[in-house]
Amino acid sequence: MAIVLGANRYGKAENRVVRIYRDTERHEIRDINVSSALRGDFADAYLTGDQSKILPTDTQKQTAYSFSKEKGLTSIETYALDLGAHFVDSVEYVKSARIEVEEFEWQRVLVNGEEHDHTWVRKGQETRTAAITVTGSGDDRTNIVVGGFKDLIILKSTGSEFTGFYEDEYTLLEPTTDRVMATSLVAQWRFTTTNVDWEPTYLGIKKIIIETFATLHSLALQQTLYEMGKAVLEAYDFIAEIRFSAPNKHHFVYNLQPFGVENNNEVFNADDRPYGLIEATVIRDELSAAPEAWESYTGLV
Amino acid sequence: MAIVLGANRYGKAENRVVRIYRDTERHEIRDINVSSALRGDFADAYLTGDQSKILPTDTQKQTAYSFSKEKGLTSIETYALDLGAHFVDSVEYVKSARIEVEEFEWQRVLVNGEEHDHTWVRKGQETRTAAITVTGSGDDRTNIVVGGFKDLIILKSTGSEFTGFYEDEYTLLEPTTDRVMATSLVAQWRFTTTNVDWEPTYLGIKKIIIETFATLHSLALQQTLYEMGKAVLEAYDFIAEIRFSAPNKHHFVYNLQPFGVENNNEVFNADDRPYGLIEATVIRDELSAAPEAWESYTGLV
Amino acid sequence: MAIVLGANRYGKAENRVVRIYRDTERHEIRDINVSSALRGDFADAYLTGDQSKILPTDTQKQTAYSFSKEKGLTSIETYALDLGAHFVDSVEYVKSARIEVEEFEWQRVLVNGEEHDHTWVRKGQETRTAAITVTGSGDDRTNIVVGGFKDLIILKSTGSEFTGFYEDEYTLLEPTTDRVMATSLVAQWRFTTTNVDWEPTYLGIKKIIIETFATLHSLALQQTLYEMGKAVLEAYDFIAEIRFSAPNKHHFVYNLQPFGVENNNEVFNADDRPYGLIEATVIRDELSAAPEAWESYTGLV
Amino acid sequence: MAIVLGANRYGKAENRVVRIYRDTERHEIRDINVSSALRGDFADAYLTGDQSKILPTDTQKQTAYSFSKEKGLTSIETYALDLGAHFVDSVEYVKSARIEVEEFEWQRVLVNGEEHDHTWVRKGQETRTAAITVTGSGDDRTNIVVGGFKDLIILKSTGSEFTGFYEDEYTLLEPTTDRVMATSLVAQWRFTTTNVDWEPTYLGIKKIIIETFATLHSLALQQTLYEMGKAVLEAYDFIAEIRFSAPNKHHFVYNLQPFGVENNNEVFNADDRPYGLIEATVIRDELSAAPEAWESYTGLV
Repeated sequence: MAIVLGANRYGKAENRVVRIYRDTERHEIRDINVSSALRGDFADAYLTGDQSKILPTDTQKQTAYSFSKEKGLTSIETYALDLGAHFVDSVEYVKSARIEVEEFEWQRVLVNGEEHDHTWVRKGQETRTAAITVTGSGDDRTNIVVGGFKDLIILKSTGSEFTGFYEDEYTLLEPTTDRVMATSLVAQWRFTTTNVDWEPTYLGIKKIIIETFATLHSLALQQTLYEMGKAVLEAYDFIAEIRFSAPNKHHFVYNLQPFGVENNNEVFNADDRPYGLIEATVIRDELSAAPEAWESYTGLV
Repeated sequence: MAIVLGANRYGKAENRVVRIYRDTERHEIRDINVSSALRGDFADAYLTGDQSKILPTDTQKQTAYSFSKEKGLTSIETYALDLGAHFVDSVEYVKSARIEVEEFEWQRVLVNGEEHDHTWVRKGQETRTAAITVTGSGDDRTNIVVGGFKDLIILKSTGSEFTGFYEDEYTLLEPTTDRVMATSLVAQWRFTTTNVDWEPTYLGIKKIIIETFATLHSLALQQTLYEMGKAVLEAYDFIAEIRFSAPNKHHFVYNLQPFGVENNNEVFNADDRPYGLIEATVIRDELSAAPEAWESYTGLV
Repeated sequence: MAIVLGANRYGKAENRVVRIYRDTERHEIRDINVSSALRGDFADAYLTGDQSKILPTDTQKQTAYSFSKEKGLTSIETYALDLGAHFVDSVEYVKSARIEVEEFEWQRVLVNGEEHDHTWVRKGQETRTAAITVTGSGDDRTNIVVGGFKDLIILKSTGSEFTGFYEDEYTLLEPTTDRVMATSLVAQWRFTTTNVDWEPTYLGIKKIIIETFATLHSLALQQTLYEMGKAVLEAYDFIAEIRFSAPNKHHFVYNLQPFGVENNNEVFNADDRPYGLIEATVIRDELSAAPEAWESYTGLV
Repeated sequence: MAIVLGANRYGKAENRVVRIYRDTERHEIRDINVSSALRGDFADAYLTGDQSKILPTDTQKQTAYSFSKEKGLTSIETYALDLGAHFVDSVEYVKSARIEVEEFEWQRVLVNGEEHDHTWVRKGQETRTAAITVTGSGDDRTNIVVGGFKDLIILKSTGSEFTGFYEDEYTLLEPTTDRVMATSLVAQWRFTTTNVDWEPTYLGIKKIIIETFATLHSLALQQTLYEMGKAVLEAYDFIAEIRFSAPNKHHFVYNLQPFGVENNNEVFNADDRPYGLIEATVIRDELSAAPEAWESYTGLV
């Protein structure tokens, strides 16, 4: 029975590139954590230690920084596509490149009510993400783009219930018709094209997700995820699928009865662990899946 | 030579209390991490294991949750003062109570441009803090209140220099007249009174700090800290002192010269470690210090 | 174009179960973080909010704790198989269960050179992991078991080089014939059977990996990973494949030349980010892949 | 009322110095995270931005790395004393230097049962710490050395009770005569001299602490801390005081009664938050306190 090298890739993870645009007095800032991973004709490096086809990870780092100036860094999807294409096109041994990006948003500080030209505070809410996979050359080129965000912490203090569930011998949970529902949402959506106006699309998708979370009377976190995904796909016909991972961050009603204090869903303990964890995909049924879209490299995206 | 019990305290750390106000359809939310520590006549517990004077830490937890309803939770300073006074006044063995609070802010989501009644996203910027120390009874009662925040991540892309420094045989650093300056600021201010309108005061102090950071042409992070503190003390005569801890989050200009790419303070590497760390106190010189104000219990505040 | 529910699962993540065996005065301890995720006939919960087929995540939690006593907790692989089988066999709507376990090892403290009966310190090295997937009933039952560890931090101070690599216009890296090589290793191996003596197998695999790392003169981290995997598969014929994820934790030689101090690979800066990240699979070529083995639920395993 | 600069210091935090001794084929490794902070005649930097007395934090970094070769890095206490003395003695504006060190231990891997010459795994248990404060010159020189460790996670599965405590209207806790007691211990001890054999002293103190934790039948964590401290001071007459900070990492007996499963202190939930937090000092009563010993700079030590 032969023992062989299977799937493999390598690259440079977590390059912390900060790009300032300072062409006018009103600067702009983009702040990212970018990783690159290459697949290709690299078996020799594993089997014999021959590095002659290996583009060093240090070189990948240099390129990531330089491209933020050479190509610019305005939308992370465009930047990642440029970087991925470069590795595939310029290094003959590279068959496929994956670029993963986390973006940290900043907002201008106000001075006397006016936005300042060159000072920001970190926005601190969700982290925007992109994962692109560029494969092949010429007519065989495919570009897969997944946009998304993570760590959008959202909570509603009513409008959520959980009742009528299956019960077995280990079931102690009481049904509830009014609870706090909170999650730290991860959402990732796959585009069918690269011809997208990335910035307004990101904001539009986030708006739909937040508004659905707020306005849907929730019978379960599962239902909320599905409705959010459906609304996004209905609004954007170039989104093939959207995936959610949603920890149910439990807020347990605190028992104040021993102290004669009424607690009508007013005082909660925000628990750490364990937590429910719900995953769902909403997809257009006629579109082919793209498993390589979801092969996370760093685990950050 | 005798061996004796020295300074000691005990309590319950990191109670994650979430308080919803739902008297109208427009709910309000306060979300805190609160810790309590007691000092007093507790030597027997250490020396002989006799617990008869020890109020269990579990009881301190129960009280923290119950007080968020009994006394309310609107300003963390008031809540902490109520909780601290309770332990000192109701348990005869307690001589002093320290209450530390981290507050996580939420902001209402918008639905069709309108603020939603009961859905929020975590704001995600600085964490507001309070540390109060209540000691003694009757005429001997003292209340020390320290407000503050931590993790305010702020950056300016110009308007900062560092030149003319002392040089010795290990000095390699080149002076610069234009650099990125960024920090994750911790600020803590001590009040001389409890008769304070806590919410607008917090916002006012934060505004002064941010505006000073933005508008002062900085010759060093040290100077920026001093000017921020001075401005706060000039604006609020009931602030006795303000302390800053400011990591200098280095953004190093990335060398793109080998690739023939100009980098005029446009592309930076945001480095992790090591970092400069500047600490400064700005204080009114005629006021007595209050060392017990700064004896952090959890290290979180 | 229809919009449909795609892949989905739900469960309870991160149950922190600690199991003490105290049948004799010499206690034993097992300390785990266990997560369960169910797939099955759950579309109604997403599409209409009907929970009647949903076994609550709270019930999954109760079961995880109870099974540590009912079935015991000696090997995490056996415990996870028991728990997974229970969900598939007892709840008609469950088609597949995934159980992920992190195990934290403890070691007995010594008192006068003797192992103590009931006191331990956390061992603190690698975290052992298991991920099992139980699918189907009766003759259709499949059990996939993946064992592994993560966060094995290992370093060699010589016996590693990196030379002869591909160079392009962005390549600045200098080759080296003597460097520090360090990683925080993740290894996961898939078994072809459940008829395994789990404890000695775990120790045996870890021993092979560590010894190969130590004794192989490394031409690249890629080569080291391949040789480690090959040695494991040669030693254990019931291992179908092994996957590695290895961050290259860079230790850069610190430049002391400006101070007239020689540094012959003696003083290093242990850098945080970015880092090289190498992934490799070593597999028996005749065996079918098992993609569901690798669909991590929590990201912890 | 004048506003003035109060206490201040500045330095470079978290230099990750790794030192390899390779004079023979059997290498040695020391791995530290070192921070330096200077106090002195630095008011001008704050008040006017004049940096002429400021030794850059970058210079402090260079010195920390260079000293690991120039002076060596065998015991962290000696290394820190050398580094602190250098700043005070060589820069006229520096009045006092504080050096804080975290040390990460490594252990040699075994190959065929033999310790390997140049390969280690991270030991992973407690982190050893040192904090030294060097002040003044000549006859006014004082050297304060605090050794210690943090994150020693220790647990006993019996031999611990908690009964007879004070009860008030918020007390729900039930007394217990048999519980799991676990903590992640921080211990710091202050020396009265620098004439110490640092390595065996560290091991000896740790041994006493662990053995006392194991063998003392505990009536409360407070009692355990006191007895550990007393034993250390009795054994080492050059230790002036020892301070403990001990989170009571609660292991709650899991209620399996609803499932008809007996749980005789066999199955526990290891809870995250909140946790009891006990702090105690054990001190020789005739010795003067040294408050500056405890003014942590980074919060890491």
